[in-house]
Amino acid sequence: MFVPGLIERKRDGGVLASGEFRELMDAYAAGALPDYQMAALLMAIFLKGLTREETAALLDGMMASGSRLDFSSLGRPVIDKHSTGGVGDKVSLILAPLAAACGIAVPMMSGRGLGHTGGTLDKLESIPGFRTNLSLKETQAQIERIGCAMIGQTPEIAPVDKKIYALRDVTATVECVPLIAASIMSKKLAEGLTGLVLDVKQGSGAFITDPERSLLLARTMIELGADHGCPTVALLTAMDRPLGRACGNALEAEEAIMGLRSEGPEDLHEVTIALGIEMLILAGEKDRAKARKRLEDALKSGKAAEAFQKIIEAQGGNPACVDDPSLLPQAEEVEVYYARKAGTVLRVEPRAIGRAVVEMGGGRRKVEDVVDPTVGFVITARPGQQVHASEPLASIFAKDPAGIELGRRALDAAIEIGAGKAAPLPLVAARVTAKGVEKPAAS
Amino acid sequence: MFVPGLIERKRDGGVLASGEFRELMDAYAAGALPDYQMAALLMAIFLKGLTREETAALLDGMMASGSRLDFSSLGRPVIDKHSTGGVGDKVSLILAPLAAACGIAVPMMSGRGLGHTGGTLDKLESIPGFRTNLSLKETQAQIERIGCAMIGQTPEIAPVDKKIYALRDVTATVECVPLIAASIMSKKLAEGLTGLVLDVKQGSGAFITDPERSLLLARTMIELGADHGCPTVALLTAMDRPLGRACGNALEAEEAIMGLRSEGPEDLHEVTIALGIEMLILAGEKDRAKARKRLEDALKSGKAAEAFQKIIEAQGGNPACVDDPSLLPQAEEVEVYYARKAGTVLRVEPRAIGRAVVEMGGGRRKVEDVVDPTVGFVITARPGQQVHASEPLASIFAKDPAGIELGRRALDAAIEIGAGKAAPLPLVAARVTAKGVEKPAAS
Repeated sequence: MFVPGLIERKRDGGVLASGEFRELMDAYAAGALPDYQMAALLMAIFLKGLTREETAALLDGMMASGSRLDFSSLGRPVIDKHSTGGVGDKVSLILAPLAAACGIAVPMMSGRGLGHTGGTLDKLESIPGFRTNLSLKETQAQIERIGCAMIGQTPEIAPVDKKIYALRDVTATVECVPLIAASIMSKKLAEGLTGLVLDVKQGSGAFITDPERSLLLARTMIELGADHGCPTVALLTAMDRPLGRACGNALEAEEAIMGLRSEGPEDLHEVTIALGIEMLILAGEKDRAKARKRLEDALKSGKAAEAFQKIIEAQGGNPACVDDPSLLPQAEEVEVYYARKAGTVLRVEPRAIGRAVVEMGGGRRKVEDVVDPTVGFVITARPGQQVHASEPLASIFAKDPAGIELGRRALDAAIEIGAGKAAPLPLVAARVTAKGVEKPAAS
Repeated sequence: MFVPGLIERKRDGGVLASGEFRELMDAYAAGALPDYQMAALLMAIFLKGLTREETAALLDGMMASGSRLDFSSLGRPVIDKHSTGGVGDKVSLILAPLAAACGIAVPMMSGRGLGHTGGTLDKLESIPGFRTNLSLKETQAQIERIGCAMIGQTPEIAPVDKKIYALRDVTATVECVPLIAASIMSKKLAEGLTGLVLDVKQGSGAFITDPERSLLLARTMIELGADHGCPTVALLTAMDRPLGRACGNALEAEEAIMGLRSEGPEDLHEVTIALGIEMLILAGEKDRAKARKRLEDALKSGKAAEAFQKIIEAQGGNPACVDDPSLLPQAEEVEVYYARKAGTVLRVEPRAIGRAVVEMGGGRRKVEDVVDPTVGFVITARPGQQVHASEPLASIFAKDPAGIELGRRALDAAIEIGAGKAAPLPLVAARVTAKGVEKPAAS
């Protein structure tokens, strides 16, 4: 393999063969391909793209570097949900136990906060004692026992993806559809799934803000899933405002616990149910209305909350949090934020809010930063809402007065009140399958 | 400086500021910018280009990393010639002493063979004892004493260029006009020149085979020279066949010695004189015909040959070679190559010949290879020449019969004989200055 020749071919818009991607990934995993050659190749891929076949070959090469979970002896559907990342998106904390309560095995492997978005692992770790660093063996055993585990990427899963991801982060090659798709799918397919539901975020708070590109990302992941025997469905959901009210790790964990009892915000509930229906359909349920009922029943009966308690207990956390969320860590300072003037809430800009959570200490600016689980916002203002001057719109949670001040300024910038008309995106804009794009199914 | 942000801007077709290039080069020279970030940036530059201002800023950043020769106290024009590289191009060995004999100070810094092309340093080192690794101090002193030194890139000259060049070589980012231009000019401008003549090769044996791109390279270097107070002129010369007859290090040194006495091949003589005229014009000579006469006189009077002897002596070589070229190393095996059939010589393909010299041991396939100075070809066949079957067209010089066989096969492939009409490029196709492109001046 003459690496500069392969880089040159991609640079000039040519196509690499499957065996070449495999060799490249093997060499990179083994430390035989230097970072600088991978960096040049990634930039050429960023600017010249990959064909469907090339993306699949890249994915195969990445998967070959690692281990795979195997649930073939379980005799149950094995389904995960993945979100492309947003602000206030705590769906996973509700949906994983909910799907498990409905009989689905859920090997949920999530990430940490990235940029302005929060991460499921950071939210879970706000639960005192919760361990997300299970080994592959522990994960397999826990899923066989209680039907669900919520973990981080283990060193055995797609290690070459981890290495490439770190390199992309420092070489301006992150926002590239085939690279994003192959990275996500290399981890998801290693979970040994029989089906996958994608929550592809759209709007100013998504990583990819261009609707055509987010649709392309959805299609690319669906194709990769189909090519690898893992039926994949995507919902395009709104991220032009935060999902739910809470933004910040412990605040979101608390809201998720409320959601597990159907006591959370309506938008969060609707997105969770919509994604849950897709999981049940992939698991064999034929009737969408029945799927919805099964999910609603599992929430109202307390079975979903019970499943979450089992997961927390299995992973070393304090399961009493589910009955008493005040056991979650609490912020030192709380302040109510009031409307500056009367009018219509035109926008609640999620990116500004997500960035503020990070700045207030709720995310990382450097890899080694320690996250403060207590800080963030609970924002009740929604686009389209009429407000009068001095009406409470949000609460700010911080570790000190400087954090409160930071939060206040962020809300000033994020919440726009005026005379016009709000035009929020539909909560669920489309359903995408291997067959094409549909309007979301009513159920 | 947030490096991924700078890479991203270039990736998206944006422009980097002068200070940003300076910071990037400083950090890379200091080892604070990792190779993988530089590799990603180079690929983005390769695919998105650089503006004139950016190319100049890159050049400034590269020059700032190193030292500069200073001949301001010399009171003489300081002029160098640089070739973009070809096969059989031994002009520097004649022109440096010739220009010195005409009163010009010539700090000639050259390279080694690269790809299919030969390098001036390798040719000089075929002269027994010749040292090309002078320090900057030795170089300065020798030029003050005898008007010329012929050296390699010293560690003090544009060290960041050396580092970037090595990285480009393994990341498929070599053939990029602004990067080539900045690399060449970073070394040439560090020589403290008052003028520079460029020999930009055109045709299948040049590194850049597209005539428009080779003209763009010439213009880019001329602009960089002008912006840095170093008037620069380029001649576009033919590299669709080897220059002169000899290809191979010692064979070319011998042909250069013949050229120093006006006893070499006519095409070599004409290109040397054409470039020499440009050097004299840059040195203040107003009359092209007088410039030619001064050069021809220096050759015929023996003054140019004498200058070469002084250079050889000063750099540790055996100056007797100039009077007796048989003192140069001689090949073990020599064989005459005959025409396979009668007809017109349609092509003598330089790239195939240059590659064969490397394969026969006259160049490097790996950096650590030791060059055999004796091997190569003397090819008398010229495009357009009528030949009869079994007419001698060339001699092959090799270290063993396998080398002869290699050479024979290369000549079979390189020399095309047929019924058509040869269409060689004009020897000097154009003269390019800051003012524009002219037909070559008659003189």
